[in-house]
Amino acid sequence: MASQVPALFAHFSSVQEEVLARYFDFLKFKSISTDPAFRSEVLSCCSWLRSQLDRAGFTTEIWETSGHPTVFAERHIRPDCPTVLVYGHYDVQPVEPLDAWQTPPFQPEIRDGHVYARGAQDNKGQFWYFFEAVRYCLERDANFPLNIKFLVEGEEEIGSPGLQGILEAKQDRLSADYVLIVDCGIPSMSRPAVTVGLRGGCLITVTVNGPKIDLHAGQHGNVARNPNQALVQLLSKLHDEDGKVLVPGFYDGIEEMSEAERTLIDFSFDEADYEKTFGTKAEGGESGFPPNERRWLRPSLELNGIGGGYVGQGTKGIIPSTAIAKLSCRLVPGQDPLRIQKIVADYLRSQSPRGVRVDVELQPGASSAVRTSPRAHVTNVCRETLGEIFGTPACCVLEGWTVPVTSRLSAVSGGQTALIGLALPDDQIHAPNERFSLERLAKGFVWAVRMLEVFSSSESGKHGTS
Amino acid sequence: MASQVPALFAHFSSVQEEVLARYFDFLKFKSISTDPAFRSEVLSCCSWLRSQLDRAGFTTEIWETSGHPTVFAERHIRPDCPTVLVYGHYDVQPVEPLDAWQTPPFQPEIRDGHVYARGAQDNKGQFWYFFEAVRYCLERDANFPLNIKFLVEGEEEIGSPGLQGILEAKQDRLSADYVLIVDCGIPSMSRPAVTVGLRGGCLITVTVNGPKIDLHAGQHGNVARNPNQALVQLLSKLHDEDGKVLVPGFYDGIEEMSEAERTLIDFSFDEADYEKTFGTKAEGGESGFPPNERRWLRPSLELNGIGGGYVGQGTKGIIPSTAIAKLSCRLVPGQDPLRIQKIVADYLRSQSPRGVRVDVELQPGASSAVRTSPRAHVTNVCRETLGEIFGTPACCVLEGWTVPVTSRLSAVSGGQTALIGLALPDDQIHAPNERFSLERLAKGFVWAVRMLEVFSSSESGKHGTS
Repeated sequence: MASQVPALFAHFSSVQEEVLARYFDFLKFKSISTDPAFRSEVLSCCSWLRSQLDRAGFTTEIWETSGHPTVFAERHIRPDCPTVLVYGHYDVQPVEPLDAWQTPPFQPEIRDGHVYARGAQDNKGQFWYFFEAVRYCLERDANFPLNIKFLVEGEEEIGSPGLQGILEAKQDRLSADYVLIVDCGIPSMSRPAVTVGLRGGCLITVTVNGPKIDLHAGQHGNVARNPNQALVQLLSKLHDEDGKVLVPGFYDGIEEMSEAERTLIDFSFDEADYEKTFGTKAEGGESGFPPNERRWLRPSLELNGIGGGYVGQGTKGIIPSTAIAKLSCRLVPGQDPLRIQKIVADYLRSQSPRGVRVDVELQPGASSAVRTSPRAHVTNVCRETLGEIFGTPACCVLEGWTVPVTSRLSAVSGGQTALIGLALPDDQIHAPNERFSLERLAKGFVWAVRMLEVFSSSESGKHGTS
Repeated sequence: MASQVPALFAHFSSVQEEVLARYFDFLKFKSISTDPAFRSEVLSCCSWLRSQLDRAGFTTEIWETSGHPTVFAERHIRPDCPTVLVYGHYDVQPVEPLDAWQTPPFQPEIRDGHVYARGAQDNKGQFWYFFEAVRYCLERDANFPLNIKFLVEGEEEIGSPGLQGILEAKQDRLSADYVLIVDCGIPSMSRPAVTVGLRGGCLITVTVNGPKIDLHAGQHGNVARNPNQALVQLLSKLHDEDGKVLVPGFYDGIEEMSEAERTLIDFSFDEADYEKTFGTKAEGGESGFPPNERRWLRPSLELNGIGGGYVGQGTKGIIPSTAIAKLSCRLVPGQDPLRIQKIVADYLRSQSPRGVRVDVELQPGASSAVRTSPRAHVTNVCRETLGEIFGTPACCVLEGWTVPVTSRLSAVSGGQTALIGLALPDDQIHAPNERFSLERLAKGFVWAVRMLEVFSSSESGKHGTS
């Protein structure tokens, strides 16, 4: 079937109030995956989500993992229908610094046409319009000819170690013709796009240990080795002045993108707009590459956090006992994440300054970069329907971020994978005042309905019998 | 008069319980000077202290300053008696990290012969034994022939900007024959000592400003300049690999200590004991100097705090909006603190990495290094009485820390100055679990009584009429 887009928008308007109520309930859970203190909130959020899927007519399961559980939900109509698997995550990032939020991060509020909350976009908001679209299709037609699976995990923000650990074991449940990773975005409202590649990633924590307690900086300055200074010395060896990563072998084996592929991707980047939006020039990373090549085709090594001693109000004259840094690498095709994690760790250990003990911790959840085909049927369906909604053809882009589970999920499902979503660069995800616009909630709903309709009339069905 | 030391210890034992009760009341005030949130606790502590001095028979005043007030107290007996001015401070350092304290920092507790609390030693404990000794001398003899002044400020831990701003205006009130700065220590219980020099200091805060909000590290890694990385790059230019400060002119004009002076000072340092006590080798600062020369005769530039992004549990994949560092310099004779503060700030500005805005803030309270004479009468009195108490001759040492007001207070008072106290290197001042031993509380009391007795029979009286 093929709905008229205006009719779908009209329908969304008529149900927006109840959609928002459910979406807000989802946002109120403090499902911060990285901090064990929020474990019970994570579990409550998981149970609530399962009950929503139950009510929508799905057969649901909770899959236990080494960490937070995954919700799996299935609606099997007929073996000869195609199967779509939709991936999302119900976990969110931490909310610090709390005082930078205009309203509390877990009390969603609408201002200026946007919903403000942690997870408003990433990924509760994106999941929600898609799920409401599925609910609508099934309510409208109990025999809607599409098999649908949902895979919604609770550890995306920490590298998906749990889900990655069970993917192979669940292979027969995860088979699908089309896998939709609904955790991506578009460059702007005037430039709809489907993503055809993501960077991978790995995480490392470095701790510099000095004196066994914090010491008085006057009494011990010039005597005890200062962990803050040792950390600065160590970290300063990670990049040269041009932003190039100095870890030997870091750039080895990178697969260059072919010219033919490049022509299918829109690399344009508005530097003036970037500076206006984010208050900083697009001057990070390696010199010598345009911004979108730096973030899409080049790996990065970022210091996500550094801390040691006292940086509160006023001053505290100490040499701290320890100093810490949290690093992340974003990786491109040809870089093995475990190899990169190891060579960065080895390099940090080899550069340890005298007089301190350097501990390097390799965090779980490393993942490879992903490329999908700009010419695949799944990509075409997503692009064409997106173009209908935005009234302008959608292009192909890449993204610099990571959805850790993508490459292995794509492999075990056996399906064609598409990286889609309506994120915008200024949604302030991972930051205070994260937001998602009501306009995109509506567009996302209509787009998802249209995608589901087109997929339901697509080829295959061979994966529908699981 | 000259008391017998054993009799004084016996007396202290008989009053220890009530002394501890008053000392604990003092420790309970959260008089953290650096954080405006504690302003009312600072003021309550000041009022309480004044009332204690009132009750001991002093004429007291509160001196308002640009910041926290100073308590001034005077007991004038006769113009022909010598005058002793005792300096102390009632403010304390912040208490972070709170979870590292075995018992709450403002609930003093006795364990293993030590009082544990913020300020237990620095400076509430050191002030307290001296004050109890004065109270005892006056109770024992209402006509005790010594004029006594107390100057107890509330901003020592932040560089004493307020008191330094009013010292000259209060010159006539501060005249004295002998000035005792009771905020210093001894190398160990087997090595009693009087301090004949302190380093000065100055404070600088550096903020690196990048994007106007925290950004997603995957989306923006290699595009936005990372303030953490820019801060690391900037701070790495402060020291070379041998710990030498790279700021041009930093070491200019340093007055070398003469060989004759050196022979009067005990530079010995037990590296094995240091490592055992503090869990770190004495390998900080500039190579090529022995440890006690590095901390007493060489200036230092320390990173007291660095912070940017998230370093809590787990990970948060961001490029932070800002990163901050708090620096302190410890200075030696010949270094003008305001000049050093300026050249360090200028250097930091000149080395600003591209793509970020570097703000450098010069904090108030810069102070010069101090030297007192190892041969002065005041030094001899302190050493000889200290030797009586410890049963072994006291030596002269220097200290690496700063009592900011010392050099100007010494000048305006017109008196001979001594830097004294019973701090030990492992009192954990400025750190969690700060402590002071009951043994030293008793020894400090007896020592102070003996000093007061000897000063009361000393020369002068010319400053007693203020």
